[in-house]
Amino acid sequence: RINGERLWDSLMEMAKIGPGVAGGNNRQTLTDEDGEGRALFQSWCEAAGCTMGLDQMGNMFARREGSDPEALPVYVGSHLDTQPTGGKYDGVLGVLSGLEVLRTLNDLGIRTKHPIVVTNFTNEEGTRYAPAMLSSGVFAGIHTQDWAYDREDAEGKKFGDELKRIGWRGEEEVGTRKMHAFFELHIEQGPILEAEGKDIGVVTHGQGLSWTQVTIEGKDSHTGSTPMPMRKNAGLGMAKVLEKVDEIAWSHAPHAVGAAGHINVFPNSRNVIPGKVVFTVDFRSPDLSVIEDMEARLRVEGQKIADDMGLSISFEKVGGFDPVAFDEGCVTAVRGAAERLGLSHMDLISGAGHDACWINRVAPTAMIMCPCVDGLSHNEAEEISPEWAAAGTDVLFHAVVETAEI
Amino acid sequence: RINGERLWDSLMEMAKIGPGVAGGNNRQTLTDEDGEGRALFQSWCEAAGCTMGLDQMGNMFARREGSDPEALPVYVGSHLDTQPTGGKYDGVLGVLSGLEVLRTLNDLGIRTKHPIVVTNFTNEEGTRYAPAMLSSGVFAGIHTQDWAYDREDAEGKKFGDELKRIGWRGEEEVGTRKMHAFFELHIEQGPILEAEGKDIGVVTHGQGLSWTQVTIEGKDSHTGSTPMPMRKNAGLGMAKVLEKVDEIAWSHAPHAVGAAGHINVFPNSRNVIPGKVVFTVDFRSPDLSVIEDMEARLRVEGQKIADDMGLSISFEKVGGFDPVAFDEGCVTAVRGAAERLGLSHMDLISGAGHDACWINRVAPTAMIMCPCVDGLSHNEAEEISPEWAAAGTDVLFHAVVETAEI
Ligand SMILES: NC(=O)NCCC(=O)O
Ligand SMILES: NC(=O)NCCC(=O)O
Repeated sequence: RINGERLWDSLMEMAKIGPGVAGGNNRQTLTDEDGEGRALFQSWCEAAGCTMGLDQMGNMFARREGSDPEALPVYVGSHLDTQPTGGKYDGVLGVLSGLEVLRTLNDLGIRTKHPIVVTNFTNEEGTRYAPAMLSSGVFAGIHTQDWAYDREDAEGKKFGDELKRIGWRGEEEVGTRKMHAFFELHIEQGPILEAEGKDIGVVTHGQGLSWTQVTIEGKDSHTGSTPMPMRKNAGLGMAKVLEKVDEIAWSHAPHAVGAAGHINVFPNSRNVIPGKVVFTVDFRSPDLSVIEDMEARLRVEGQKIADDMGLSISFEKVGGFDPVAFDEGCVTAVRGAAERLGLSHMDLISGAGHDACWINRVAPTAMIMCPCVDGLSHNEAEEISPEWAAAGTDVLFHAVVETAEI
Repeated sequence: RINGERLWDSLMEMAKIGPGVAGGNNRQTLTDEDGEGRALFQSWCEAAGCTMGLDQMGNMFARREGSDPEALPVYVGSHLDTQPTGGKYDGVLGVLSGLEVLRTLNDLGIRTKHPIVVTNFTNEEGTRYAPAMLSSGVFAGIHTQDWAYDREDAEGKKFGDELKRIGWRGEEEVGTRKMHAFFELHIEQGPILEAEGKDIGVVTHGQGLSWTQVTIEGKDSHTGSTPMPMRKNAGLGMAKVLEKVDEIAWSHAPHAVGAAGHINVFPNSRNVIPGKVVFTVDFRSPDLSVIEDMEARLRVEGQKIADDMGLSISFEKVGGFDPVAFDEGCVTAVRGAAERLGLSHMDLISGAGHDACWINRVAPTAMIMCPCVDGLSHNEAEEISPEWAAAGTDVLFHAVVETAEI
């Protein structure tokens, strides 16, 4: 069994970097705080006897040697970046539980046949730079590195420049590493495990995602002196589209969800009818045909709304991935570990996207989930218990050690 | 007649300060650019032989002496600040036409009995600091100066501090000046004069305004892993309220308008269901009871929407003024001037708020309007013709000289 107290202490120590305003974290990717978090993780890994690799996307790889020089490493990990008002566990648990696996192996004096590598992937959250899971996506060959470097944040700062600025752009070519397997422990970020009273989610699938950025243009004009029939109110057009997004998602519930989290209005002045709005619609489903239907309906219905109101509308896909089926062997290793440990468990479909979803394209992959209070995530009040964290890490330990062989 | 070419040259010269991105201006109140615009205006006034007064709200008063030391001055003016994506004439025409009146009197060697004072009021637009017409409001005793100094912009910078920072806080106590009369020339910012083919709007009334800031709170949570029935989507609540605002305004059309120009969503991340939105609803009508009805319905209907969705909602009135009836004597002077000059004219209700609306509380006041292309304002493409500007300024000249007596 792993050392639950040590794991918890490390989680709390990491949470001191980039504190939020309400008990959580704001440690967005490629900020100074991200750099600080990386340095702390590196110091812990080095103290545990690992060597640190760093690739050109800033992905970090802490390696514990195996006994067989020919054996491919087993990888574990997740991400250390957070939402602007994020929790202390989303991603962080997956990285620090990996470190805890190594520390426990050190305690027990066990050398596995396969090396074990703990990974921190850059920009999983996708808030500062869309899309999410950007660097695991480059690793898996989904995006090119040049394209990733060109992504811009809201202030127009490029990903490549910011990565260099914080000093975490490495020399290693991205995606050249071969993995024997990849495991990611993550909090569920949803309510199912808690409701079902299970300690462990054995993640068999991940639902797919589509991000469509919608731009509506009308005409900015005076809120007081422009008669109602002459208005081209892009904000009102957005309101109608947002209601339609909700209606479309409900029409497929419970097999789909939909919302817009990101909304910018221009020029955003109290006495100017909005001439332009830009917002991003997030649709998800475990079923690819449902995602495609929702995307298509958004475009058709959005166009109708715009036409009726004399507005123009355009759609740009800014992120997405297809539903994922994880590797049967790895999933079986996770389920077996939970059973051997006597932990209650159930099969689960991940509602969120994870680095594991991209890595699954290039290596046998599985995920483990632990519950979180009220299913709440992407909120500073995100919470888990030390027992849940320890149980998830125990399962990770057993699945990894079994796969890495002793 | 005034010198239309000189007036136009001054308008174009002022428009060089704080250029916009699309041919208009971004010279928001209490920015460095506002300071530059003020300095240019002051230099022109001094060149025309005026002395400049400056009060503690930054209101500027360029005085041309009269022949009777006992006579109260006739005031003319408007504002030099602009919207973030504003036009070159909104406000500016009212200030520089006042200067043109003085320059023309100089050309003609006329000394009026009453002094004439040309005014630039601080923060008319209300974008950076709500409410609009802030400093004419303090002048008229509507707001206290302390309250005005405490207003904060989006970055939390206080009005009082920014006024001091740009170096335009004067010593003079606000509102102590007594006015014989006040005249303001302004572009219509609406489509009526152009549609009716009239050169001059004789403004008899101004419609009233109500700004209600609405805050909706839900719960920020993950867009992927939060099931539809568990969502508390403040952004969706806002969408429903925005549609209701439109419906309420239409129910009183053509005697009312309504929209929201200012919308902020938190935490504004693509994969976070909005936990909070703040937006400002702008309702207007020439009829006070209509404004009161719209305000009341917004609160009732907004509360219903929030209750139905499990959201919380709150309402704060952040600006407003009652409908205005301008002074009969001053209005008659304007109408008479237009007639003497052989200009086509019609009576008009102002759709926008103006400094004249507050000054009307403390002095006999009237407004003159000239057409603007397509009724478009609060847009960088705002346009007028040199002829329209000259015709409006001719009427101003005649109304002012008649009132100031020769
Ligand atoms: N786990 C997680 O929140 N990832 C961010 C990508 C997503 O929105 O699903
Ligand atoms: N004239 C003008 O646009 N004033 C700003 C105040 C308002 O919104 O009416």
